[in-house]
Amino acid sequence: MANKKQKDSRKLRIIPLGGLEQIGMNITAFEYEDSIIVVDCGLAFPADDMFGIDMVIPDVTYLEENLDKVKGFVITHGHEDHIGALPYILQKINVPVYATRLTMGIIEKKLEEHALMGTTTRNVVHFGQTVNLGRFRVEFIKTNHSIVDAAALAIYSPAGTVIHTGDFKVDYTPVYGDAIDLQRFAELGRNGVLALMCDSTNAERPGYTQSERTVGVTIDRLFEEHKDTRIIIATFASNVDRVQQIINSAYRFNRKVALEGRSMVQIIRIASELGYLNVPEGTLVEIDDLKNYPNNKTCIITTGSQGESMAALTRMAEETHRKLKVGPGDTIIFSSHPIPGNEKSITNVINKLLIKGADVIFQDVHVSGHPCQEELKLIYSLVQPRYAIPVHGEYRHLIAQAKVARTLGIPDERIFILQSGNVLELDEESAEVTGSVTTGGILVDGLGVGDVGNTVLRDRQHLAEDGIVIVALTLEDDDHGGSRIVAGPDITSRGFVYVKEADVLMNEADVVVENELDKVLRTKAADANALRTCVKDALSDFFWKKTKRRPMVLPMIMRVDE
Amino acid sequence: MANKKQKDSRKLRIIPLGGLEQIGMNITAFEYEDSIIVVDCGLAFPADDMFGIDMVIPDVTYLEENLDKVKGFVITHGHEDHIGALPYILQKINVPVYATRLTMGIIEKKLEEHALMGTTTRNVVHFGQTVNLGRFRVEFIKTNHSIVDAAALAIYSPAGTVIHTGDFKVDYTPVYGDAIDLQRFAELGRNGVLALMCDSTNAERPGYTQSERTVGVTIDRLFEEHKDTRIIIATFASNVDRVQQIINSAYRFNRKVALEGRSMVQIIRIASELGYLNVPEGTLVEIDDLKNYPNNKTCIITTGSQGESMAALTRMAEETHRKLKVGPGDTIIFSSHPIPGNEKSITNVINKLLIKGADVIFQDVHVSGHPCQEELKLIYSLVQPRYAIPVHGEYRHLIAQAKVARTLGIPDERIFILQSGNVLELDEESAEVTGSVTTGGILVDGLGVGDVGNTVLRDRQHLAEDGIVIVALTLEDDDHGGSRIVAGPDITSRGFVYVKEADVLMNEADVVVENELDKVLRTKAADANALRTCVKDALSDFFWKKTKRRPMVLPMIMRVDE
Repeated sequence: MANKKQKDSRKLRIIPLGGLEQIGMNITAFEYEDSIIVVDCGLAFPADDMFGIDMVIPDVTYLEENLDKVKGFVITHGHEDHIGALPYILQKINVPVYATRLTMGIIEKKLEEHALMGTTTRNVVHFGQTVNLGRFRVEFIKTNHSIVDAAALAIYSPAGTVIHTGDFKVDYTPVYGDAIDLQRFAELGRNGVLALMCDSTNAERPGYTQSERTVGVTIDRLFEEHKDTRIIIATFASNVDRVQQIINSAYRFNRKVALEGRSMVQIIRIASELGYLNVPEGTLVEIDDLKNYPNNKTCIITTGSQGESMAALTRMAEETHRKLKVGPGDTIIFSSHPIPGNEKSITNVINKLLIKGADVIFQDVHVSGHPCQEELKLIYSLVQPRYAIPVHGEYRHLIAQAKVARTLGIPDERIFILQSGNVLELDEESAEVTGSVTTGGILVDGLGVGDVGNTVLRDRQHLAEDGIVIVALTLEDDDHGGSRIVAGPDITSRGFVYVKEADVLMNEADVVVENELDKVLRTKAADANALRTCVKDALSDFFWKKTKRRPMVLPMIMRVDE
Repeated sequence: MANKKQKDSRKLRIIPLGGLEQIGMNITAFEYEDSIIVVDCGLAFPADDMFGIDMVIPDVTYLEENLDKVKGFVITHGHEDHIGALPYILQKINVPVYATRLTMGIIEKKLEEHALMGTTTRNVVHFGQTVNLGRFRVEFIKTNHSIVDAAALAIYSPAGTVIHTGDFKVDYTPVYGDAIDLQRFAELGRNGVLALMCDSTNAERPGYTQSERTVGVTIDRLFEEHKDTRIIIATFASNVDRVQQIINSAYRFNRKVALEGRSMVQIIRIASELGYLNVPEGTLVEIDDLKNYPNNKTCIITTGSQGESMAALTRMAEETHRKLKVGPGDTIIFSSHPIPGNEKSITNVINKLLIKGADVIFQDVHVSGHPCQEELKLIYSLVQPRYAIPVHGEYRHLIAQAKVARTLGIPDERIFILQSGNVLELDEESAEVTGSVTTGGILVDGLGVGDVGNTVLRDRQHLAEDGIVIVALTLEDDDHGGSRIVAGPDITSRGFVYVKEADVLMNEADVVVENELDKVLRTKAADANALRTCVKDALSDFFWKKTKRRPMVLPMIMRVDE
């Protein structure tokens, strides 16, 4: 719902729409008078306790309620947490999408898969270009990130200019294209910037993030040191610059390169077609052709650097990969850092690879794509915003950026840590959270979008913890207006206790149920609900006393059809 | 089962008994002729996919089969992964337990809880003391670790001397007691050491682990910097030295200290009673008495530094703590590092505390209790073992230590990475893995030990992923030797799909089941199993097509009692 206060129409309204409490999707609405633009449209990966959920997409009720105002989606870069929900949301909010070239290439692949190419208006934007969207103008500014073609946005509104950095780092020596356009940040700052919305991911880290090019040096050294083995390198599929550098090293050391993993093949194909990747003739080969070359003249670039359960490297580690077997004579390099939460999965994969006799290298072959504290200070100092609105990161990261902003002289009352749904109204005079709108996460499970809610999740957690016991029985009317049991009770369990061990327990449970039924059927007309409750309570108590576990108890009470 | 080869009776046999593939329990058997001693008896915390499991304890079939040989448990220190399974295993293998004083104090608390004090022979051992255990003699050597009274063991056998370091670090300036007895390691090395079994936890890290005392300096500084707020510090309950240093700082800054969290209160009580903690008169107060002092004159030392779901700090963050509320005016310090796998839980707790307005400090207020590479090199250089057997850590850590050993000149053929159950036979002449014995993890869930096996776990995973659909129906004999349905089919689901959304789906499912039943009941005498299979397959197919999910389908088919 919209906020209670009367809207101040001369103010800009910034409304983050993404995110549950802990896992954030990047999607932010900017509203001025009759115009709304939306920056990014990301998905979130499910939290640990969201059993069976594939992904989470944002609840865009607010946009649906204001559909006539929405002018377009403006996308900063092609990572899932910034574009992943587009195919779902565009089905409800069918407005034009604006993005740089590679970003649009990746989006189009998604639209194809969802058969949305025909209905979606797509606009490729160049760096330095400005697009008009109702009362807004949006300029795309070159930045650096772990995917090429990342953009910051200068969002011009009558209330002032907001700079949204997207995800970025300062890389003076990028692998592809130009360094971040610091001059433009400075120019905008000189002209006056109302608010800076800046990437917080690394705000807890002092210093600078290293240039992507430093990884190339490391990869070269590793190729030099491992001339006698096959080399398998796992990295993020979308890190085109990383793949470029690996290809460069492979070429230099006269190795053929094969790509493995669906997303790796897909994104690299897009990047090649669009000219973001420079592959020397004859360097790339198919996996099946690797056998034509000595092992130490080959290199495989693969997905699975996060220990994802179905990724190619994980399948190699678990010997379920159809084409590749690893063992002694393989050097396997993780060109990645663990994303928090993936540490255990990655370690499992590393252990399995080591047990097979492979050499595994997993330290210092990666740099981050996000700015550390000194980079934050640089951007703040160039932009000199009136208000600071840290974005992108968990609450702890936003707070860390707020601390940095404070050290640069921005007072607390001009720093805003927004919660999902908060409506921040601002102009040069003032800024204030004036209300909130409906937001939240919509769970996607298989083909179902939003059909798994809290009840289903709670049930899954309960089932996961202690399993289920089902009691089935059938009643028929007796001659005295009551009921009698004609079949059952049959008791079955799943995920509760090992069946052989359970024999005695289940026999005892039978007795508990029969005693309970005796009582109930004797004392009152057998209302199915009352019966259900009695059986359930009696069995739950019994199992708790016997096992200190609380399986879900589900009575199925039927009645003979008349 | 014991190995196939004829045992060579003049050789020492080392058999690690702990552990599944990924999660290790520390328990190792040493066998020589008619004598077996067991070093440590730890539990493991369940892996992520072991839904509902409380802990894992080792399968000690091998010890049970050789019960008459087993002379005793020799314990290195009081952490759960080294002592946690004792109360379970002692019920099968009732032999004396040998440990240093604090370690024994912690063990005794466990024995009390399991009513095993009366039946367990306990022997407190002092550093430098040697105990005789059949053909073995075992000497306890002072080390340093994140719990006081940690010991390395020199295990003397007729085949030679093995040094088992336990978990340790080299701390030249420990908070309590002496530094690690490096002279004794040197002396033993000079006399000739057959094998070194050395802690691998930090073997991937270069350099030295800092002294525990450096944390005291940091804590002092934090107390100095936060004079106006209440201070809440989360740390490991068993880190008595850490608690001592926090108490020292609190006393210096004139604050009262309260302990919070069951294990914190318990272990600190044991340590105090045994004289391992020096608390200035009047410094410790009860939680309930904190209200008598200004907030900035109090300090709370609490459990929950790993974001554990039921720990005190987590309850504060979630506002479910009965006595303590946190908010602005609280400085909350995590004096800990995340144990791999806990990163997300910890971040959740940090976020919640920050959202409440508390200041949270979580960097650089901890040092490890395990040796880094330079410390490993020191111990190897003092001991100069013939064989290296890296222990304690995941496979990747064992491999990292093996690399260190190799740089020190120990050739590959004298380095052994043992898998659980491997039997290593060794003496001065040779060393070889000659077979393997039964090992594994036994799952503990509530009161059940071993009654949850792979089938139950698989069911729990299946239920967690997609829930369950139950189809109940009752048959009776018809007049033609077949069956007819007299009640049902009733279809119910849990954890599958939200009920309102499910209406249409479940109605369709009803039709699927009824069609299927029609077919089966018509075509053959209704065998309950055939019926069950048909219904199950038909429904599974139907749901997969409709939802791309695979709920567990459980038919409950009853028959009217004759």
